[in-house]
Amino acid sequence: MVDLKPDERVDDLDLKGLRIIQNSKWFCFGIDAVLLASFASIKKKDRVIDLGTGTGIIPLLVYGKHTPKEIVGVEIQEEVAEMAQRSIEMNGLQELIKIHLGDIKNAQKELGSYGFDAALSNPPYKRANTGIVNIADTKAISRHEMLINLDELVLAASMLLKDGGRFCMIHRPERLKDIFLSLNKYKFEPKRMKFVHSKVHDKPAMLLIEAVKGGGEFLKIEEPIYVYNDDGSYSNEILAMYGKGQL
Amino acid sequence: MVDLKPDERVDDLDLKGLRIIQNSKWFCFGIDAVLLASFASIKKKDRVIDLGTGTGIIPLLVYGKHTPKEIVGVEIQEEVAEMAQRSIEMNGLQELIKIHLGDIKNAQKELGSYGFDAALSNPPYKRANTGIVNIADTKAISRHEMLINLDELVLAASMLLKDGGRFCMIHRPERLKDIFLSLNKYKFEPKRMKFVHSKVHDKPAMLLIEAVKGGGEFLKIEEPIYVYNDDGSYSNEILAMYGKGQL
Repeated sequence: MVDLKPDERVDDLDLKGLRIIQNSKWFCFGIDAVLLASFASIKKKDRVIDLGTGTGIIPLLVYGKHTPKEIVGVEIQEEVAEMAQRSIEMNGLQELIKIHLGDIKNAQKELGSYGFDAALSNPPYKRANTGIVNIADTKAISRHEMLINLDELVLAASMLLKDGGRFCMIHRPERLKDIFLSLNKYKFEPKRMKFVHSKVHDKPAMLLIEAVKGGGEFLKIEEPIYVYNDDGSYSNEILAMYGKGQL
Repeated sequence: MVDLKPDERVDDLDLKGLRIIQNSKWFCFGIDAVLLASFASIKKKDRVIDLGTGTGIIPLLVYGKHTPKEIVGVEIQEEVAEMAQRSIEMNGLQELIKIHLGDIKNAQKELGSYGFDAALSNPPYKRANTGIVNIADTKAISRHEMLINLDELVLAASMLLKDGGRFCMIHRPERLKDIFLSLNKYKFEPKRMKFVHSKVHDKPAMLLIEAVKGGGEFLKIEEPIYVYNDDGSYSNEILAMYGKGQL
């Protein structure tokens, strides 16, 4: 039995029996989280940190797909972090996944410097000054750079990661220049990229990028992901990512 | 009648009756030049410069597709520049297309600062220290950064272009970080990008990028180009680029 608050529901992740609590009035996880968790290179011995974890979807998917040693999800919004904590407990994973209530910008002080092998983030992708935003709106905080911007996020990742640690993000193609400049500023070397297209003949909708702290120069842009077939059904690669075609 | 030297041949460009002289022992133009000439935003009133023009293929294709006011092709290799000049004369275009024998790094001094509306380049794409190179080898000069590197090329373009002028390159995806860093260093703002894939499920083989000198921030990554259909035939977009499907 799970105690749910108003507007909350439990969704099955179709991955090792994992489930998640979501609030239908807040930001609910989408394909971004699934793409990021699948793309990231995570090893079993890794300590992993998810910057801006929201519902805790990325720690749950990373656990389900890669079973690393430990995952910490940092979330600044108290109600959201509390809901994520209940999701982790509902799955009995509180020993492996810790939800840390706090600001990403303070995470290094609170969680220690240079201790993580991998950092992940599905950050707000719009600049703070674009579109209508409401500071009390949890959806807006998830979408706009109100509380942290890209450069501050990359800096935070660099302070949290060991040398040779991997930082993996999903972001929007129009921010590619900003991503390269911030990575370069904080001594990350981009190593792997992958564009995600809705359909084969569409422009890319998202990009996945993995950079290595203090890494040597060698960038590989991998084959793209197409989410839908021409007939509107999900592509085989997306079905495989969700497992068993249950989307 | 055209006077040809040993190993030279005349190829039809299937574009407004244009023809080109090529030397089968040197670097012969490939799809890169066709992609670049098609991708570039060139207006009828533009003064255009092609940095490292080789056979003169890009000036000829740009003339054929966009008919700008003037095109200058800079080429450092004397024999290659001389052959390009004969191609231009064979087409009767010597008033519109000038082949300038010289080093790209000196082009600003020799051709004047800030006078061009658009600069194009299909530069050597491999770092100087990779692979086997022979300084006297015209193919190697076309492929390796022996005489000019990416950063020097972007600097040269910035000195040749007006404010608001466009710099358009075709390059290799693994150089994307270097491209963004050099563009940023010389105050170019990337505006349009397009990846070129051999087939739909292949990683990108090439990238096209257009940047504006002193431009405002807004990057659009456009829909990709796939060169081949799954059955190995040329895709419709490539056939259209070559005109009438004659490849």
